[in-house]
Amino acid sequence: VRRADRSFPLRELADRVGAELAGDPACVITGLGTLEDGGEGDIAFLANPRYRKHLAGARVSAVLLREADRAACSCNVLICRDPYLAYARVAALLYPEPAVAGGIHPAAVVAPGAAVDPTAWIGAGAVVEDGARIGPRAFVGPSCVIGRGSVLGADCRLVARVTICHDCTLGERCLVHPGAVIGSDGFGQANDAGRWVKVPQLGRVVIGDDVEVGANTTIDRGSLRDTVIGNGVRLDNLIQIAHNVEVGDHTAMAAFAGVSGSTRIGRHCTLAGASGLVGHISLADNVHVSGMTMVTHSISEPGVYSGNVPAIPNREWRKNIARFNRLDELARRVRALEGRLGGGAGERAAEDEQ
Amino acid sequence: VRRADRSFPLRELADRVGAELAGDPACVITGLGTLEDGGEGDIAFLANPRYRKHLAGARVSAVLLREADRAACSCNVLICRDPYLAYARVAALLYPEPAVAGGIHPAAVVAPGAAVDPTAWIGAGAVVEDGARIGPRAFVGPSCVIGRGSVLGADCRLVARVTICHDCTLGERCLVHPGAVIGSDGFGQANDAGRWVKVPQLGRVVIGDDVEVGANTTIDRGSLRDTVIGNGVRLDNLIQIAHNVEVGDHTAMAAFAGVSGSTRIGRHCTLAGASGLVGHISLADNVHVSGMTMVTHSISEPGVYSGNVPAIPNREWRKNIARFNRLDELARRVRALEGRLGGGAGERAAEDEQ
Amino acid sequence: VRRADRSFPLRELADRVGAELAGDPACVITGLGTLEDGGEGDIAFLANPRYRKHLAGARVSAVLLREADRAACSCNVLICRDPYLAYARVAALLYPEPAVAGGIHPAAVVAPGAAVDPTAWIGAGAVVEDGARIGPRAFVGPSCVIGRGSVLGADCRLVARVTICHDCTLGERCLVHPGAVIGSDGFGQANDAGRWVKVPQLGRVVIGDDVEVGANTTIDRGSLRDTVIGNGVRLDNLIQIAHNVEVGDHTAMAAFAGVSGSTRIGRHCTLAGASGLVGHISLADNVHVSGMTMVTHSISEPGVYSGNVPAIPNREWRKNIARFNRLDELARRVRALEGRLGGGAGERAAEDEQ
Repeated sequence: VRRADRSFPLRELADRVGAELAGDPACVITGLGTLEDGGEGDIAFLANPRYRKHLAGARVSAVLLREADRAACSCNVLICRDPYLAYARVAALLYPEPAVAGGIHPAAVVAPGAAVDPTAWIGAGAVVEDGARIGPRAFVGPSCVIGRGSVLGADCRLVARVTICHDCTLGERCLVHPGAVIGSDGFGQANDAGRWVKVPQLGRVVIGDDVEVGANTTIDRGSLRDTVIGNGVRLDNLIQIAHNVEVGDHTAMAAFAGVSGSTRIGRHCTLAGASGLVGHISLADNVHVSGMTMVTHSISEPGVYSGNVPAIPNREWRKNIARFNRLDELARRVRALEGRLGGGAGERAAEDEQ
Repeated sequence: VRRADRSFPLRELADRVGAELAGDPACVITGLGTLEDGGEGDIAFLANPRYRKHLAGARVSAVLLREADRAACSCNVLICRDPYLAYARVAALLYPEPAVAGGIHPAAVVAPGAAVDPTAWIGAGAVVEDGARIGPRAFVGPSCVIGRGSVLGADCRLVARVTICHDCTLGERCLVHPGAVIGSDGFGQANDAGRWVKVPQLGRVVIGDDVEVGANTTIDRGSLRDTVIGNGVRLDNLIQIAHNVEVGDHTAMAAFAGVSGSTRIGRHCTLAGASGLVGHISLADNVHVSGMTMVTHSISEPGVYSGNVPAIPNREWRKNIARFNRLDELARRVRALEGRLGGGAGERAAEDEQ
Repeated sequence: VRRADRSFPLRELADRVGAELAGDPACVITGLGTLEDGGEGDIAFLANPRYRKHLAGARVSAVLLREADRAACSCNVLICRDPYLAYARVAALLYPEPAVAGGIHPAAVVAPGAAVDPTAWIGAGAVVEDGARIGPRAFVGPSCVIGRGSVLGADCRLVARVTICHDCTLGERCLVHPGAVIGSDGFGQANDAGRWVKVPQLGRVVIGDDVEVGANTTIDRGSLRDTVIGNGVRLDNLIQIAHNVEVGDHTAMAAFAGVSGSTRIGRHCTLAGASGLVGHISLADNVHVSGMTMVTHSISEPGVYSGNVPAIPNREWRKNIARFNRLDELARRVRALEGRLGGGAGERAAEDEQ
């Protein structure tokens, strides 16, 4: 990793992230490194126990770790409850985001009716349409398109080639990665004797503050209501948010997560990779959906929900899936056996199946 | 939702969508609203029974609904067989697509050998390559790329940042959303002793009339044949259509649907979200595939096909999946029990397994 | 398919691809065709037995096929071990990639500090930022963005609208399709009492030689290490490669494959469509993952791994999935039956479950 833009004595880092320092307070940290590859001047972190084996041989100048791992480390340590969180803060101190230089690239196209704050930057090839408003210190990277009437809050950063369709709003400090599309039409199709009739999509996308949207993720505009993304929501790459969806504050989704139309997700939920929610359901706060899991009903209780078939060697899987395809028959055979032997279990099971 | 561009007396709306009017024929409709949030001047619809509870308290001026729901509504009603379809038509009347103003934005790049109809619009930053033909009233939004030799039919609308690669054709009235890629190379890879050798992709993508293509959806060009998308097909966001695929007229697919190479899909099929079809198979007309379902064989009978594991609480799922991974053994144990008890079922099952 | 750019006598094609010729060596091949649709002057191939039925009626001038299919073909044949591979080579001979004409389109934006080889092409609307280096004969298609400090090796081809973020490197002869994003931020999020704190993503993406990246595929930059894609890797459309992932040489992935953070994949692996790998695991060389399969643990043995539920008619699936959701109970009932009947199997099973 490149050298850090700034450097700090360990004492100051400890204070800034609220960690307990054990070691040389004057040791100067000039960069980040991994336990495996980092060197002199670097600070590393240990959060995942999988990487504890690298602690003994680490050549970094300091390590962020939990109290329990302290004894295993012979270099300077910053002891904290959540080393990954402390690492995030240290990284942001060492590598601050560069300040945005206001201005409009000569190869950008800004409509006369657009309002661009003088401290905002509009990059080469970007197109800002009529009625759009770009807030203070916002960064609109190369080849972005900001549709008519859309609003970017202060300090938003659109990395490059982002599309914001018309009449959408982003709060402050949103970060949007390349290829993301915000405000595309929802997939509303009525059927007239076999032919699809498009339903006009008249709502907007309304995004809160501190939201991150990953590369090539798509968020459709509402049909009548708005599609609403709460504050602090984090979306990975290649996610689909359908029309009228509401995502609660501080919910996070991993790549390929998909949320179908009009579904409401609570606060502090997580959707793991390639999980999907059908339409018109709601999830309570603090619901966590496992990877490649399909949620088909509303969930009112917090907790972890799963439904997938983890990989096993193909030969075993083939036998099991063949059995699965006759599972109902197998269950009937078990009931028949129970019936022949008599007694409670079989009768209870039979009653359940009425 | 914003005020409608036009307004209509209820009588006229009823006539235009073929609904039976009960209420004040002179009531003027000036917009759309939901049962929950709409107000004076709005028309709402009730299709999904889930939302019937909002009927009593609705403050809209009129509601599109089925005969069966009529009694529960105290305001003006338009009674129709399919309220969602009627709503689509009403919405299109109230919010018509704006007419396309012909011209070429000064920041567009149109090759000298391209033929752009004078009534078509080419937006800022768009690139139209040699030999491309853009039909009457077509709208090519900002930052679109139209490759050499490609053809857009009359009234096509490419919202923004769409890529049409070389030598592809779109029929009339197609609507393509941002980030979609039409005509990328198919994934043809031969293997030479462990190294992949690219197979040139020489076919085209040929798209019919009235097709909608969602944001960031990809449609690969054929290897030798063309990839063919029939009339009236509707594709949601983030869909993958591989090379040589043929999609029959009026088929619709939801987000993350994927169709592997050379597969043929019939007419009036639906693929739900995240469903996938392996390559070189065919689906009859009127086949409906459930969400997150993988189709591994050709399907010759119309109907609904499913294969997924809906979410349940993780604790229960863990137990069941552990059992699934020993399902073959469980079935053998059941057979053994049947054998020990004697009689028909066990013997039949044993025969089936020969 | 369009006429070939070049033509060859059959003798020369046979020599070039190492095939045995049976037929007229002077027959001139002027194009490619399928067994079903090809005609005079075309050469076809037969690899998938599914298409053998078209052999008898084929009207092409020659067919690439295996020895075993020779007798069934009455026209000229080129006999080879792998007809698909031979076809790939023949296609590349007949339809060579056009040479790149060096230059910079007047509507491209190249920063003064970028180094563009004079033999490279920068297309209309492309943006090349400071410090970027574009190698000999590289082709940067319309509307691509090459971030500051990024490097394209010789003969790379970015078809159109590709985004390479800052400080990434591509080796020689890489082919990247429209909408692909290389070097977007990894999804690193620490949690501070319910609020997500972004972890700066400071690594790069480093891509080897002869890599193909499909349309709308995303490859995230590393957090501290780099994300590394080996030589000869082939990625289809809409794939997600997360931060710090390492993909071994000559591995291929089909559409919607997803690899979570810090996972390492060996050489010569294949991930079928919509398969997914959790983070922080490793796959040995020559591991093949089936479609829609989720890999949740490291795999150290080569082979095929599967975990999905292929589609069956919905009515049957409903019954089976209901049974699946009570599979643990069913297994307990079987054990109870075994206990009541006495004997070995039940006891062994009971012991397993301790």
